[in-house]
Amino acid sequence: MNMRTAAPKRTPVPLNGVDTPALFATIGVVAGQPELAKFQFRAQGKWMGGTHTQTTMSGFAGAGGEHSHKMAFTADGDHPAVLCGADNGPTPVEWLLHALATCLTAGIGNIAAARGVKLDEVTCTLEGDIDLQGILGLSDKVRNGYQGIRAKFDIKGDAPPETLAAIVRQSQARSAVFDVLTNGVPVSIAVNAG
Amino acid sequence: MNMRTAAPKRTPVPLNGVDTPALFATIGVVAGQPELAKFQFRAQGKWMGGTHTQTTMSGFAGAGGEHSHKMAFTADGDHPAVLCGADNGPTPVEWLLHALATCLTAGIGNIAAARGVKLDEVTCTLEGDIDLQGILGLSDKVRNGYQGIRAKFDIKGDAPPETLAAIVRQSQARSAVFDVLTNGVPVSIAVNAG
Repeated sequence: MNMRTAAPKRTPVPLNGVDTPALFATIGVVAGQPELAKFQFRAQGKWMGGTHTQTTMSGFAGAGGEHSHKMAFTADGDHPAVLCGADNGPTPVEWLLHALATCLTAGIGNIAAARGVKLDEVTCTLEGDIDLQGILGLSDKVRNGYQGIRAKFDIKGDAPPETLAAIVRQSQARSAVFDVLTNGVPVSIAVNAG
Repeated sequence: MNMRTAAPKRTPVPLNGVDTPALFATIGVVAGQPELAKFQFRAQGKWMGGTHTQTTMSGFAGAGGEHSHKMAFTADGDHPAVLCGADNGPTPVEWLLHALATCLTAGIGNIAAARGVKLDEVTCTLEGDIDLQGILGLSDKVRNGYQGIRAKFDIKGDAPPETLAAIVRQSQARSAVFDVLTNGVPVSIAVNAG
């Protein structure tokens, strides 16, 4: 998620599939009632056997009320065969790359619309390096997670390269997932056993 | 991802859908050739219009070679209607919860098998709180990402509650996604514009 914040220099018009006037109106409403900005997102996970888990993402709270996605989205995660899993879905760490790609790209769509730039194409490739000596418990000097993530964006539109690149940079500057991945977040885990 | 590291106290047998002997054999092989532990995971994203992105997760490297999932997995991310999106998929920040749920639960499956504990059911609920004043650019005092994530696991199996709870805690201790989310990771973003 990611949006443009400064007042538009032009009358906003729908662009890139973004309802730009509605987006600016939303920002204006939240500016006047900051409590509407508090959101809570949720996922429910169910173990399917082995290393396979299916989660459901359906309801969330925000803008002063409860909401449901237009459908209950489900997704799978698993380990691949080389790690003794059944490969029923992407690995958990690939899902982190997916989260980052979708956040940065959504921001690019919104920000380009807000700046009056028509986009033709946005693609990205993401890579994450991980040394499994961490999670395999073979070394306490190797972290469990990624050691680094690299993203490369290709962006084409009706603006000069520097304008297009600045849109990507603004998306990065206001990306929720980029912030979480680079800065970390407190995570608490409770267990109800038996 | 998450695996048990100490030598098994019993002859490992397949359990919980986990090929426990193969898992221990894999750990043994990697212990002798640590370079096999280096993995690279990847995702390719494509902007679909508005705030909708579709990613593909297919190939990855590791264990000294290139691998492909048994199919090219695709997934969508979008913003919901209340945030002016078309709701074609979960939000990017919900995907972070999905990544965490699938990582911790996969670890629970593996660790329980390694410890000879038969699991009956594992479910989890995750919540993430976010104040959108950050990404909306309405406050520089509010971070862009989640302010906190809470996960609650319910686990049932043929072991005392404290044994089941210890499995969850060991999964947390060796979770790649838990590490990334709580400690952060360097992320570099390159742009090819025009």
